[in-house]
Amino acid sequence: MPHKDSDTESTPSAPINLKDVLIGEPLKSDRITEEKYSVLWGLPILASDAISSVAYAGQEVLLVLIPVIGLLSYRYVLLIALAIVGLLTLLIFSYRQTIENYPCGGGAYIVAKDNLGDMAGITAGASLAVDYVLTVAVSISSGIEQLTSAFPVLHPYSVPICVVLVLLLMLGNLRGIRESSKIFGLPTYLFAFSILILIGTGIYKYMTGAPIEHVVVASNYYGVGSVSLFLILRAFSNGCTALTGVEAVSNAVPNFRAPESKHAKRVLMLLYLTILGLFGGTSVLINLYRPTPGDGQPAVLIQLADMIFGRGDVINAIIFYFITGTLCMILFLAANTAFAGFPMLLSIMANDGFVPRQMKQRGARLGFSNGIVILTIAATILIIVFRANVTNLIGLYAIGVFISFTLSQTGMLVRWFRRRGKHWGFKALLNGAGALVTSLTVIVIAITKFSQGAYVVIILLPILIFLMKKVKNHYTALSIQLHFDEAHYANPTLTTQKYRNRAIVLLSSVNRASVRAIRYASTICDDVTAFSVVIHADVEKKLVENYRKLNNSIPLIVKHSEYRRIVSPLIEYIDSAEYDFRQGDMITVVMPQFHVTKWWQSFLHNQTQLLIQRKLLQKYHIAIVTIPFQLDDDKEVLANAKEEAKKKSALPEEPTKDS
Amino acid sequence: MPHKDSDTESTPSAPINLKDVLIGEPLKSDRITEEKYSVLWGLPILASDAISSVAYAGQEVLLVLIPVIGLLSYRYVLLIALAIVGLLTLLIFSYRQTIENYPCGGGAYIVAKDNLGDMAGITAGASLAVDYVLTVAVSISSGIEQLTSAFPVLHPYSVPICVVLVLLLMLGNLRGIRESSKIFGLPTYLFAFSILILIGTGIYKYMTGAPIEHVVVASNYYGVGSVSLFLILRAFSNGCTALTGVEAVSNAVPNFRAPESKHAKRVLMLLYLTILGLFGGTSVLINLYRPTPGDGQPAVLIQLADMIFGRGDVINAIIFYFITGTLCMILFLAANTAFAGFPMLLSIMANDGFVPRQMKQRGARLGFSNGIVILTIAATILIIVFRANVTNLIGLYAIGVFISFTLSQTGMLVRWFRRRGKHWGFKALLNGAGALVTSLTVIVIAITKFSQGAYVVIILLPILIFLMKKVKNHYTALSIQLHFDEAHYANPTLTTQKYRNRAIVLLSSVNRASVRAIRYASTICDDVTAFSVVIHADVEKKLVENYRKLNNSIPLIVKHSEYRRIVSPLIEYIDSAEYDFRQGDMITVVMPQFHVTKWWQSFLHNQTQLLIQRKLLQKYHIAIVTIPFQLDDDKEVLANAKEEAKKKSALPEEPTKDS
Repeated sequence: MPHKDSDTESTPSAPINLKDVLIGEPLKSDRITEEKYSVLWGLPILASDAISSVAYAGQEVLLVLIPVIGLLSYRYVLLIALAIVGLLTLLIFSYRQTIENYPCGGGAYIVAKDNLGDMAGITAGASLAVDYVLTVAVSISSGIEQLTSAFPVLHPYSVPICVVLVLLLMLGNLRGIRESSKIFGLPTYLFAFSILILIGTGIYKYMTGAPIEHVVVASNYYGVGSVSLFLILRAFSNGCTALTGVEAVSNAVPNFRAPESKHAKRVLMLLYLTILGLFGGTSVLINLYRPTPGDGQPAVLIQLADMIFGRGDVINAIIFYFITGTLCMILFLAANTAFAGFPMLLSIMANDGFVPRQMKQRGARLGFSNGIVILTIAATILIIVFRANVTNLIGLYAIGVFISFTLSQTGMLVRWFRRRGKHWGFKALLNGAGALVTSLTVIVIAITKFSQGAYVVIILLPILIFLMKKVKNHYTALSIQLHFDEAHYANPTLTTQKYRNRAIVLLSSVNRASVRAIRYASTICDDVTAFSVVIHADVEKKLVENYRKLNNSIPLIVKHSEYRRIVSPLIEYIDSAEYDFRQGDMITVVMPQFHVTKWWQSFLHNQTQLLIQRKLLQKYHIAIVTIPFQLDDDKEVLANAKEEAKKKSALPEEPTKDS
Repeated sequence: MPHKDSDTESTPSAPINLKDVLIGEPLKSDRITEEKYSVLWGLPILASDAISSVAYAGQEVLLVLIPVIGLLSYRYVLLIALAIVGLLTLLIFSYRQTIENYPCGGGAYIVAKDNLGDMAGITAGASLAVDYVLTVAVSISSGIEQLTSAFPVLHPYSVPICVVLVLLLMLGNLRGIRESSKIFGLPTYLFAFSILILIGTGIYKYMTGAPIEHVVVASNYYGVGSVSLFLILRAFSNGCTALTGVEAVSNAVPNFRAPESKHAKRVLMLLYLTILGLFGGTSVLINLYRPTPGDGQPAVLIQLADMIFGRGDVINAIIFYFITGTLCMILFLAANTAFAGFPMLLSIMANDGFVPRQMKQRGARLGFSNGIVILTIAATILIIVFRANVTNLIGLYAIGVFISFTLSQTGMLVRWFRRRGKHWGFKALLNGAGALVTSLTVIVIAITKFSQGAYVVIILLPILIFLMKKVKNHYTALSIQLHFDEAHYANPTLTTQKYRNRAIVLLSSVNRASVRAIRYASTICDDVTAFSVVIHADVEKKLVENYRKLNNSIPLIVKHSEYRRIVSPLIEYIDSAEYDFRQGDMITVVMPQFHVTKWWQSFLHNQTQLLIQRKLLQKYHIAIVTIPFQLDDDKEVLANAKEEAKKKSALPEEPTKDS
C-alpha cells in the first residue's frame, strides 16, 4: 500500500566533483519558492534585455540612414525614436492586461494557444524561441563591440571572447535563478544610472554651450541619397530591436514572489519608465551630438561618452570608463534575460508535448538545465557563423518577437470578445490596436530586412513549427497507446493473468558470469534453454564439454552462424517449430553484462550485447534481462592471482578446495 | 543437448541498403578460403608498398643531399642505393627463414613475442602499426605529388584528393580480400613494366648519346656545403623507406593458398627481384640524368620520364603520361598493402588480448572491418595535419618498421640457439647479421631524423605499448574472474542452487506498458513490489488511485525524491530494513521500455531508463529486465483514434466493451 517517506533520502555530498564546484551543490525541490524574484531583483534580471538595446538600437538606426542621407539622419532618428516609444507604450499597456489575465505566466505562447489554438501557440513559441537565441547572440556581440571600441587591441579576439562569455552565462544560470539575479542585477542599475548621468550631463553641457569634443569621421560616411519610405521603414525595423525583451515580464509571472501578478505589473511599469528615459534620452543626445557609427568607428554610445566627458582629465576619464564598463556589462547580462526566458518557455511547451519532455526536467540547482544548454549551443553557433558582428545579426532579429507580439495581442482580442467582462470594449480596443500595429511591424520588418537575414528566420520558423507538430503527434500517439481505460481495468487477462513463462540464456562459454545467468534463469522459471551461437566451429566442442560438467537439466542449443550474426539465429530459433513458441508467450532472454571499474574498459568488451538488446526489442513479448557481473580492479586481481600462485607453489600438496 | 543446424539461417537480402551497395552483400564465413592469395595476385597486393617506394625513396635521398653538396649528390645516391640493396638482400634471406619457421604467419609481432616475450612482441606490434598508418599517408601523399607534378592545376586540392582516395581504399578493402587484389593488382604490374621501359630506354638513350632534354633548375639548388657522415646517414635513413613493406609477405603467410609457405616464399623472392631491378635501375638513371627535386619542382620520376621521353611527339607523350599514370596508381595502391597488413596485425594482437577484441571480428565481407576503419581515420588525420607533404611525413617513417625488423631478427636468432637443427649455425648467423644491421639502422634513423619527426614516433611508441599492456591486463583479470574451475563445477551452490527470487517493478504511472511489466514480474516470481519515485507530489494521488483499480495483491511503494533523483531512492529502499534484503538475494528490477518506429523518436523519451540501468549495474545481485513495449506509427494511431471517435459519436448507445 502507498507509503510516504521523504526523509530517508540522504543529502548528496561525499566526493567533491567538478560539476559541484562549477554549478554548486544540488538543491532540494522545495527550495523553488526561495528562488523567486522580488521587484528589486526581478526588474534588472527581466529588464536587462529591453534596457540594453539602448546600446545598439539607436546605432543600427543610424547605420541604415547615414550612408544614404548623411546629416539629415539625425532629424529622422528622433522621429523614429518617437514612433518606437509610441509602439512601446501601446505594448506595455497591452501586456499589463495579459499579466492580469494570466497570473500563471502569460507568454505569447500561452495566450495564443489558449485563444487561437495550437497552431498559433506553437508559431508564437517557435518565434520567441528563435528570438531568445538571437538576444543572446546580439547582446553578447554588441557588448564586445563596445569593449573593443574602448580597447581596440581586443578586436581580433571578439569571437572567442563572446563564446567564453556565453559559456559563463550558462554556468551562472545552471547555478540557479536567484543567485543569477543577484550576480546579474546590480550592473543593470549601474548602467541605467550611468546612462542617466550621460544624458543629464550631455543635455546640460549642450545647454550651457560647453565645448563639444567632436570625433573625427571619414567624409564618405555622409551619404548623398534621398529620403525614401523604404529607408525610413528599414531604419524603424532596426530600431524595433529596442522592444525585444518587453514580453519577458509577462512570460515570467509565476517566477515572482506572491502576489505574482502585482509584482510583475510593477516591474513592467518600472521597465517602461526606464526604457522611456534611456532610449528617449539617448535619442536626444544623438540628435544633439551627432555621433557617426560605421566600420572601424567606436560604438555610438562610446562616441557620446567620449564627446561629453572625454578622457582629458582624471575624473572625466573615470566617468568615461565607468560608462563603457557598465555598457559592456549590461549587454553581456542582457543575454541573461534570454537565459531566464528560453528554458522557461521550453518547459511550458514541453508540458504541452510540443518539445521533448527532457526540457521540463529541473537540474541539480532547479534551473531547466537542458534548455539552458540548448540556448548556449544555438547562440554560440550564431556568434561563430556571424563573426560576432551586430549589424549582420540584427537582420535576423526582432521579426520573431513581433510575430509573437501579434499573436499574443490577437489572442487577447479574441479573449475579450469571448469573455467580455467589465470595460471589455476598451480593453479589446487596446489589444486590438496592439495586434494591428505589431502585425504591421512584422510586415515592415519582413520586407525591409528580408535580404538582410530575415529570410533565414522566415524559412526556419515553418520548419520548427513542423517539427513541434511531429513531436506533439508522437506524444499523443504514445499516450493513446499507453492508455489504460476502464475496459482494460475490468479485464483480468490484462491486469493479473500470468504469462507462459519461458527463458533463454545466451552464452558463449561456461564462465562465472554465464553460470550466474543460468542460475538466475532457473530461479525465475522452469522452462529454460541455454543458447549459443557459434561463429568459429572450434569453440563448440569445449563449450559443450564444459556445459555438460554443470550437470543441470537445462538443454543447450548450439547454432552456427555463417554470416557471423548473433541475433538472427536466435530469432529464427524462437520462430522455428523446434522451440514451440505460442502467441502470448513471454520469453525472457538472459544475458550476463560486465560492470567495469574504469570507463575505458567498457570499450574492450564486445558491444554485441547492446546490439542484441536493440534488435530483440523489435520482437514483441521478449523480456531482456541483463545480469550484472561486477569486475574488480585489474591490478588487484592480478596481484591476488600472483599471490595465490606463489602460495600454491609453496604448498604443492594441498590443493585449494573451496571457491 | 547440443544440436547442430547450420542450414536454417536464411541468406540476408531483402531491402537493398547503402551499405550493401558500397561494400557488397554479406559473405558466408566458409568463403574465407576462396578469398586467399595466389602467387600471381598475391605478389602485387603485398608488394605494392615495397615496390612503390621507388617513387619517393630516391627523391628523398636527393632532397637531403642536393641543398648541401649539389652535383656531388649524384655520386652518393648510387653508393647509398648500393647500401640499401645490400640491406634488402640480407632482410629477404632472413625473412625466408622466418616464413619457413612460421607457416601460420610470421610477422615481427609473432616472432618477437614467441622468442623474446610479450614486451618485445607488443613493441614490434606497436611499431609496425604506426608504420602501417604512415605507409598509407606517405603513399597517398606521394601519389598526389606525382599527379600534381604532371597536372599542376590540381596542386591546391592535394589534401582533399588524398582524403577521398583513402576513403575509396577503405571501401575497396571493406569489400573483401580477393576482390581487392584484383582491383589493385594490375597497376602494380603496369607500373613495374613501365618503369622497366623507362630504365631500359633511359640507359639505351644515354649509351647511344641521344640528346637529353634537361630540366631547367634554379641555381640555389646547388649547395656549397661539404660531405659529412651525418649527411650521408640522413640520406641513407630517407632511402630506407624503400624497405618498408618487405615484412608484408611474412605477416600474411596464412592468407596464401595452400601450400602457404611455399607460395609466400616464391612471392618474397619475386618481390626481391622486382625491387632490385626497379630501385637499382632508377638509381642508375638518377646518376645518369641528374634530375633535381625541390619545392615547386616536379617529382624525380616525372622529371626522368620528361627527360627520357619528353612530350615532343605523340608516342613519347603517350609513354610519358602512361608512366605518370601508373606511378600515381601504384602509390595510391601501395597504401593498400597497409590496408591488408594493419587489420591482420591487429586481429592477431587481439587474439592475444593486447588490443580490443573488436579487432578480430570479421565484417560482412570477411575483412577485419574495425581495423580497416581505424587505419583510415589515423591516416586521414596524418594527411590533414601534414598537409599531404611527403617530405614532412618521411621524417616519421621507417623507424617503426626497422624496430620491428630488429626485434624479429633477434627473435629468430634466439630461436636458432634454443632449437638448433640442421645448419642452425649458418641460419643463426644470417638472422644475427640481420638483427645487427637493422638495429644499427634504427639508431641511425632515430638520430638523423629525430628533429624531422622521428621524435613523434619515439614518444608515441611507449604510450601505445603502455596502453596495450593495460588492455592485456584487463583481459587477463577478466578471464581470472570469469574462470570456472573444477572446484566450482563440483559446487552445487554455484552451479544449480536457485536464488531467493524477488522482483521490483519501476513505474511512474499506470499504463499499458507498466501493467505489462507488473504482469511479467508476477509471472516470474511471487514476491513482487511495485515502486514509484514521485518528484511532483501532485501525480501521487492519481497513481495510487489507478493502481488500486488494478486490484492485484502487489504492494505499491511511493517515495518522494527531493533532489529529483530516481535511482538513489530505489537503492536506499532496497538497503532499508523495510525491504528485508538478504545477502545472496537476486532482485529483479523490471522496467518497461518503448520501441519507437522512427529513429528521432527515441530522443523524445526520457533517458532515465538508461541512467537507471547504468546505476543499478553497480549494485551486485540486481538483474535488470526491460519489457519492450512496441509503439505503432504515430500517423496510424492518430488516424485510428479519429476513426474510433467518429464511430462513437455515430453510435452513442453502444460503448465498446472489448479491448
